[in-house]
Amino acid sequence: MSIAERLAELGLQLPDPPQPQGEYVPVVVHDGIAQVSGQVSRQGDTVIVGPVTADTPPGVVAHAGQACTLRALSALGSAIGGLDNMSRILFVRGFVHAQAGFQGHSSVLDEVSRLMVAIFGDCGRHARSAVGVAGLPGGGMLEIEVTAAVTVS
Amino acid sequence: MSIAERLAELGLQLPDPPQPQGEYVPVVVHDGIAQVSGQVSRQGDTVIVGPVTADTPPGVVAHAGQACTLRALSALGSAIGGLDNMSRILFVRGFVHAQAGFQGHSSVLDEVSRLMVAIFGDCGRHARSAVGVAGLPGGGMLEIEVTAAVTVS
Amino acid sequence: MSIAERLAELGLQLPDPPQPQGEYVPVVVHDGIAQVSGQVSRQGDTVIVGPVTADTPPGVVAHAGQACTLRALSALGSAIGGLDNMSRILFVRGFVHAQAGFQGHSSVLDEVSRLMVAIFGDCGRHARSAVGVAGLPGGGMLEIEVTAAVTVS
Repeated sequence: MSIAERLAELGLQLPDPPQPQGEYVPVVVHDGIAQVSGQVSRQGDTVIVGPVTADTPPGVVAHAGQACTLRALSALGSAIGGLDNMSRILFVRGFVHAQAGFQGHSSVLDEVSRLMVAIFGDCGRHARSAVGVAGLPGGGMLEIEVTAAVTVS
Repeated sequence: MSIAERLAELGLQLPDPPQPQGEYVPVVVHDGIAQVSGQVSRQGDTVIVGPVTADTPPGVVAHAGQACTLRALSALGSAIGGLDNMSRILFVRGFVHAQAGFQGHSSVLDEVSRLMVAIFGDCGRHARSAVGVAGLPGGGMLEIEVTAAVTVS
Repeated sequence: MSIAERLAELGLQLPDPPQPQGEYVPVVVHDGIAQVSGQVSRQGDTVIVGPVTADTPPGVVAHAGQACTLRALSALGSAIGGLDNMSRILFVRGFVHAQAGFQGHSSVLDEVSRLMVAIFGDCGRHARSAVGVAGLPGGGMLEIEVTAAVTVS
């Protein structure tokens, strides 16, 4: 099954690839490794804003995770000629814009990790970090960086 | 001297390898590079909590650094068939949960760096970053990411 | 044109390579990839301090970006026998020490990105992340990490 078919099966649709506003690029591929620029929780023109608190509904947190994931995958697929050329998600780094005292940063990343495995199977299993930050571009709740092994150079 | 012997000589004992709570893995090895998931300052069930302040006793700061280091090395060794297969610590990224106004983030990483060199000698000399963050999973004081060159694939 | 000539043309001068205060090194090169230790916005003994706010003059923000960039490039060039051995800036990660509520973290990185492209042309085009943090070593406004492909090992 292609990744496009798998995404459709999961009811997921990739957004248009994000366009950087500065003099940088969405993805750099070098020697079989793709590094995706940080993607903030944004769907179209709407930012899913932080800070996350212990009272933030789980559905909102999951929405932020899904939005980041789909943006990162859209950028990645656009850079490597389609996500079927992705061979392994290596690392996901998650910056969580959270209220002081919040301790559940890891759980904010769980939807990202769950989706990676749902979409790519074992090739989606990654190492990961989650940290809490004071703020993110546009006021976003979550920003992720994705590093992946790819079959193109 | 094996790394196990060197650890014993230093009076250090690796904890059990950390077990991720989500759908990610402790370490990904690809093309001779191992990336270890972020490890928070935790010893057994006890979190060494932040925020660090200018008044935090140096012994507590060093304890946090040692706890992160040993957890990361336990994860790494478990993934590569033992730490004797580690050929170079490439990078350590340290996220320091610190009080507003704190400026000594670098010194919080010094115990991590010192231990890497004490354990691995010149192979432990790494590049490094230290930044201050608003919070960490479980309220921890320190979280580190470790990237290493390894002799297994 | 050599990079030294290009820097002169732009009126830029690299500072002396930064000297780590702990047991780490400014740059690690492995398998054609150089990772530069985090560089804080500092010019000589003067730190360009945060937090950045919406009212921080653009010139101060640009100065912070330039200071980080030149320090990182000085470290990199010193480690690889000169910047002409740099083949591609792969990734820039920017930690912005910002006031609560600040949302313009990306724009703080724009001077870094602009300079990389001004100095290296297309080889300077990188992927990038910008996040907001609660504090940085020495109270700095900006800290950047640079990863680059290099022609030495």
